[in-house]
Amino acid sequence: MAVYTHLGAEDLARLIAEYDVGELVSAKGIAEGVSNSNWLIETTRARYILTMYERRIDPADLPFFLGLLDHLSDANCPVPRTIHDRSGAAWRKIDDKAVALIEFLPGVSPTTPNPAQLRAVGVALAQTHLAAQGFPMTRANDLGPPQTLAMLVQCGRDALALIDPELPAVLALGDGIVASWPSDLPASIIHSDLFPDNVLMLGDRVTGMIDFYFACSGAMAYDLAVTHAAWCFDQSGRRNYAELGKALIEGYESLRPLSESERTALPSLAQGACLRFIASRAQDWLDTPADALVRRKDPMDFMRRLEFYRANGQSAFT
Amino acid sequence: MAVYTHLGAEDLARLIAEYDVGELVSAKGIAEGVSNSNWLIETTRARYILTMYERRIDPADLPFFLGLLDHLSDANCPVPRTIHDRSGAAWRKIDDKAVALIEFLPGVSPTTPNPAQLRAVGVALAQTHLAAQGFPMTRANDLGPPQTLAMLVQCGRDALALIDPELPAVLALGDGIVASWPSDLPASIIHSDLFPDNVLMLGDRVTGMIDFYFACSGAMAYDLAVTHAAWCFDQSGRRNYAELGKALIEGYESLRPLSESERTALPSLAQGACLRFIASRAQDWLDTPADALVRRKDPMDFMRRLEFYRANGQSAFT
Repeated sequence: MAVYTHLGAEDLARLIAEYDVGELVSAKGIAEGVSNSNWLIETTRARYILTMYERRIDPADLPFFLGLLDHLSDANCPVPRTIHDRSGAAWRKIDDKAVALIEFLPGVSPTTPNPAQLRAVGVALAQTHLAAQGFPMTRANDLGPPQTLAMLVQCGRDALALIDPELPAVLALGDGIVASWPSDLPASIIHSDLFPDNVLMLGDRVTGMIDFYFACSGAMAYDLAVTHAAWCFDQSGRRNYAELGKALIEGYESLRPLSESERTALPSLAQGACLRFIASRAQDWLDTPADALVRRKDPMDFMRRLEFYRANGQSAFT
Repeated sequence: MAVYTHLGAEDLARLIAEYDVGELVSAKGIAEGVSNSNWLIETTRARYILTMYERRIDPADLPFFLGLLDHLSDANCPVPRTIHDRSGAAWRKIDDKAVALIEFLPGVSPTTPNPAQLRAVGVALAQTHLAAQGFPMTRANDLGPPQTLAMLVQCGRDALALIDPELPAVLALGDGIVASWPSDLPASIIHSDLFPDNVLMLGDRVTGMIDFYFACSGAMAYDLAVTHAAWCFDQSGRRNYAELGKALIEGYESLRPLSESERTALPSLAQGACLRFIASRAQDWLDTPADALVRRKDPMDFMRRLEFYRANGQSAFT
């Protein structure tokens, strides 16, 4: 969470004038996004999120990410629309950095979600999966099990052990996950990072799914497994309430029932999801100095979830 | 700029329910304030800034700071009002930290201000000085020249030289500033930190003066000198445009003409202002690891301004 670039009032006013959105009234740098700078912009007409793409995001992917928002938004998914400038462009450049103006959506991210909220998240996820099947672009998932296992191998057993003595066990588990990774599951464009931080809600209603910058082509059931792993556990890695997972899947299936092969694959998919977050967190941990002002996310949170999914198999989802 | 504390949606909704402000619609941590965490809060009724006092601010000072906002706001100064909770309290506690809900004001902070904007800032500053004379509380300035010189002495000549070889010269200059510090100038409550960051504007109009957490009892002309030093120079320490300072003082005097003794004191007061910012920046510089993600402010910016005021005397203000 950070604002990496200073944008002065005059820069912002000049930028906003390139869009048909009224005049600049207020701009606050907001503490969201780890690879972008973001501002909450108010104009005489409405509010917007201005995103500056700082790193990790390849500008060549912007047509995919920003086009996807428009596609999903056109299908009435709770997803912010990209605001196009007066020439129709979905993004512009300030100096050498790409920026996009995105619709502001109300809502707050729940930290202790209830089953009714999980159900709504399941519905919204299924809705985007169905709508995204009509999206004409594709994008490879560069954070699948083979890639994330390779990230962990590159970290090295010794470095992983420095984070936590139990962490290197992930390497052997990762081999198993890669070897038994299900293929040929029904695919669409998936969010692949739908943590509570990326969902805005008002009460039990999903008002916004945001931060699609890991979206890619992939198995829809994998996205459901990611969401299960991200929402249904507390800090200690034990499943908070069996009802949360049940409500998520029920909500999902109310719009898009899982096939038998998808249901069978869920335990493996969930372990693959854990591997992916263990890998990115371990890498970030090792890249971030211990005294930096950024809170490091503990990879062990997902090590415990991985163990839970291994131990409970299919019963983790019923 | 940071958000030091995580406040969940449920914590925020519970807090907002203690105020008669409608229901929570949105909350974004914003990258403002160095000693506080801040959120831009939207309710079904309006927008607000929620401030959590993290450090540097003594909770015993909150009646002064928050009462001052109400007093100035009652006098139609462009200052955000403190929102009181249903019991009438100006601040509450979450865990062991004080929080206050403050009116949101539109506007953006200029980075390359023009003379018309400086004039408006001068008017707004004079307006608050006059209005604050009726405020019944006082607060000692703990960042006057004796204290800030002591801070620099404590940093030590060697440490200052590590920041910049020319910086230790501030110690001898500081002795002179303390020795010739003007007394008995007309006093009020002063902002004492009115940098562009702390002023919101729409066009040439001041819509908000914010961040009164250094406000204290003091000479009004000192506050004008602080504002002059903060607004009228570019990065290189040379005065951007003589017109900026002239417009600031003209605006100020349109509401509150300076006395002869105040005008005579301006060069000394401005040097004292520079000493204060050199001291706090040098201390922050030495306290902040070079690889931290926080941008350190260079004390030399104000060393150059101090030299400018020494060299130009009264003509720096005409």
